[in-house]
Amino acid sequence: MASSKNFTEVLIGGKVFTLSGFESEDYLQKVSSYLNHKIEECSNSEGYRKQNAETRSILLALNIADDYFKARKQGGTLETDIETKDKEMYDLKHELISAQIKLENAEKTMDKLKEENKELQMRIVKLETQLKG
Amino acid sequence: MASSKNFTEVLIGGKVFTLSGFESEDYLQKVSSYLNHKIEECSNSEGYRKQNAETRSILLALNIADDYFKARKQGGTLETDIETKDKEMYDLKHELISAQIKLENAEKTMDKLKEENKELQMRIVKLETQLKG
Repeated sequence: MASSKNFTEVLIGGKVFTLSGFESEDYLQKVSSYLNHKIEECSNSEGYRKQNAETRSILLALNIADDYFKARKQGGTLETDIETKDKEMYDLKHELISAQIKLENAEKTMDKLKEENKELQMRIVKLETQLKG
Repeated sequence: MASSKNFTEVLIGGKVFTLSGFESEDYLQKVSSYLNHKIEECSNSEGYRKQNAETRSILLALNIADDYFKARKQGGTLETDIETKDKEMYDLKHELISAQIKLENAEKTMDKLKEENKELQMRIVKLETQLKG
């Protein structure tokens, strides 16, 4: 996040910081807004307020890191969901191909039976004509 | 993360902190280890080192928040993947049901044609017998 290119002014904990980086201003404002929300959240706890600045800084960092790990865990759950869906989809495709092959064979058999049927009917007409004659 | 139940000692930035919470010791050690890694990563940059403690604290928090937003974005991408797969799966199920119905109808038609053929063959045998008689 610390590089060149863009310079964005953000307000964090009531102080202005100039951030430089490749990230868009929108993104940096979003991250700063989240950070302000976390600072406020922490400040609501007496256990946080009574600590010195250094400990507060670590507690804030731990709190954000906790969000990060929870987001990663959520990502992991989604990855497991994707794996399950991929397996299900593989089975469905397999089942579909198998049904399509069976259908193709059934249609061939049907055509053959229709043809046979036609020939048998012609044979009957012929035999009936012979009987009449 | 700050509640009662467990008390875990962690080492962050060379200092011991006692964290209390419902999270497991394993989890808190993992988060602390990540935090130490982030502190080390930031400290490698001169731009970070030359700042005062307060600014360093904000920069560290921003850096972790950046990881959090990237993990969330990754989660969002996975959610989009899941939506696409769900749609694909819905279409596949629909196609499979349609193929199965067609197959069922083809099998019924096949049985009917076989039955008809049998009857026609019997009629032929009868007619041939009549012709011979």
